[in-house]
Amino acid sequence: MFAAAVAAVDAKTKPVGALGRIETLAIQLACIQNSLTPRVDQARVLIFAADHGVADDGVSAYPKAVTREMMRNFSSGGAAICVFAKSVGAQLEVIDVGVDADMRDVEGLVHASVRRGTRNMRHEAAMTAAECEQAMQVGRDAAQRAIDAGMHAILLGEMGIGNTTAAAVITSAITAAEPAQTVGRGTGIDDARHAQKIAIVSEVLSKHSAGSLSAVQLLAAVGGLEIAAMTGAALHAAAHGLVVLVDGYIATAAVLIADRIDVSVRRALVFAHRGSEPGHAIALAALKAQPLLMLELRLGEGSGAALALPLVQAAARMLTEMATFASAGVSTADAS
Amino acid sequence: MFAAAVAAVDAKTKPVGALGRIETLAIQLACIQNSLTPRVDQARVLIFAADHGVADDGVSAYPKAVTREMMRNFSSGGAAICVFAKSVGAQLEVIDVGVDADMRDVEGLVHASVRRGTRNMRHEAAMTAAECEQAMQVGRDAAQRAIDAGMHAILLGEMGIGNTTAAAVITSAITAAEPAQTVGRGTGIDDARHAQKIAIVSEVLSKHSAGSLSAVQLLAAVGGLEIAAMTGAALHAAAHGLVVLVDGYIATAAVLIADRIDVSVRRALVFAHRGSEPGHAIALAALKAQPLLMLELRLGEGSGAALALPLVQAAARMLTEMATFASAGVSTADAS
Repeated sequence: MFAAAVAAVDAKTKPVGALGRIETLAIQLACIQNSLTPRVDQARVLIFAADHGVADDGVSAYPKAVTREMMRNFSSGGAAICVFAKSVGAQLEVIDVGVDADMRDVEGLVHASVRRGTRNMRHEAAMTAAECEQAMQVGRDAAQRAIDAGMHAILLGEMGIGNTTAAAVITSAITAAEPAQTVGRGTGIDDARHAQKIAIVSEVLSKHSAGSLSAVQLLAAVGGLEIAAMTGAALHAAAHGLVVLVDGYIATAAVLIADRIDVSVRRALVFAHRGSEPGHAIALAALKAQPLLMLELRLGEGSGAALALPLVQAAARMLTEMATFASAGVSTADAS
Repeated sequence: MFAAAVAAVDAKTKPVGALGRIETLAIQLACIQNSLTPRVDQARVLIFAADHGVADDGVSAYPKAVTREMMRNFSSGGAAICVFAKSVGAQLEVIDVGVDADMRDVEGLVHASVRRGTRNMRHEAAMTAAECEQAMQVGRDAAQRAIDAGMHAILLGEMGIGNTTAAAVITSAITAAEPAQTVGRGTGIDDARHAQKIAIVSEVLSKHSAGSLSAVQLLAAVGGLEIAAMTGAALHAAAHGLVVLVDGYIATAAVLIADRIDVSVRRALVFAHRGSEPGHAIALAALKAQPLLMLELRLGEGSGAALALPLVQAAARMLTEMATFASAGVSTADAS
């Protein structure tokens, strides 16, 4: 399919290569869907939300309560991702996989809580193996619902106060990058808290001998429930031929783990953006990823993935709908 | 409006600055429309097409005939911009401002030809002052049609074999950059032709004493009819409060001239992308422009502007539709 897709792109009425990264993206879409007329019209943002025990230790500028408050904001349509999903014509599904609050009265959510937040990974494993598997299954189930609904793509997003800390631990454990490189300012913390966050990440890496764990063991020890769910969703969607748009640092950490579980996931991944968290660039590099956007985003929620979706749709339509030199009767470049 | 827009963006349910460049874009849109609820729902791509006398001297990999062949391709919906405009929900208007062929039998075009291509700027001025003014008026008229149709934004695109040469001359004349820096490979030329193109640009700069001309004189001497039309369209649209999305190197050269005619145009300009023509980066830098996308595009036709439109729409909707911390009852960052 790769060679056929390259030839099909080159036959379109434009100089060879003139659409740059849109062309490589179109070729990837053809390979994912095994079709020279790929489609990405139907897309669904999946926001997995959960709390983190480590957030009690002051790694975020925001209190844990914000996770549940934001769930209501998702439900009522006021969050950035609600606005962006509507703007780009994507569906939105918000899944409580472990918010530290009773969410049952919040309408429009998928209630799939594994537990009310992870344990504090400074002191013990964030999840048991069974909880981690259960959270991954929440992700697979969400991906399956998207498949059943006829989606061509899922967009991986998340909400969880404290989860850049988990992403930093995962990224350091897998890439061997120093915590000082993988820990950023998250939602906006000061110097003292940043230093404390680096110290916590170092401590956690050491406590769990994180570098020597398998991907799934690492996920259970230091991951978040929402990260495990994204890992499960990515693996399931990729195995079923969906395009998987990866949002920011946390989602990238989730697919870093997915990639270590099954490297064949990588062909389905489209990296939406490189955010302003320094560790995000490290995680992307480990996946040889070339993100589409660089807009200094650091929100999460799938917001960057939603912003990148129109590029993915345009790439698909380029291959599916554009005329060829032959069909349009346009002269090709001269050979001189 | 600027301070009010900054405050409005900061009140939205996200950490301050977490939407990065989307936030600065939203603030710009508020200033352009003088409104805290900006809208960019209605947008129209304007493709100005014309031929260049200098194309007879082999500056392009494609024969001049391609300009008219592509007009038919625009008309029948097969070109990249047709597909992209449809994909992002923008209207498309194609204006013949000086194609070197009789286009009257091609349906769906605006027929506003000033002359059949410019004269060869190696030997004489590309346009007379009157022709240049007439071409600028074609642009103003197109912008006015967009205003009359209720558009919030126009996207400036072009088609014209040989027009990267004109863009290089303009960029070198205005920025004093050497032709070796402003001349790229255009649609894809080999080393020998690239060297020849640099020599032609140097020769033209010298022949017309381009560095000492006023912006309008420069436009007439070395511009293209489509470049003059884009200059006129940008000035007119900006003066009437529209957002002007600028596509690639040629469109950027056109607004470089517009900026020299009336610097107040700049506040209305949103730069869609930085393409792979090296001179494009130089022209953008001269305008202190930070383009939204970097996707190695070099097609023109407004294709990059269309790809960037959803980002502009998302930015407007962020400001117009997102909840505030107060309205959503979400806790703000702690002050500790």
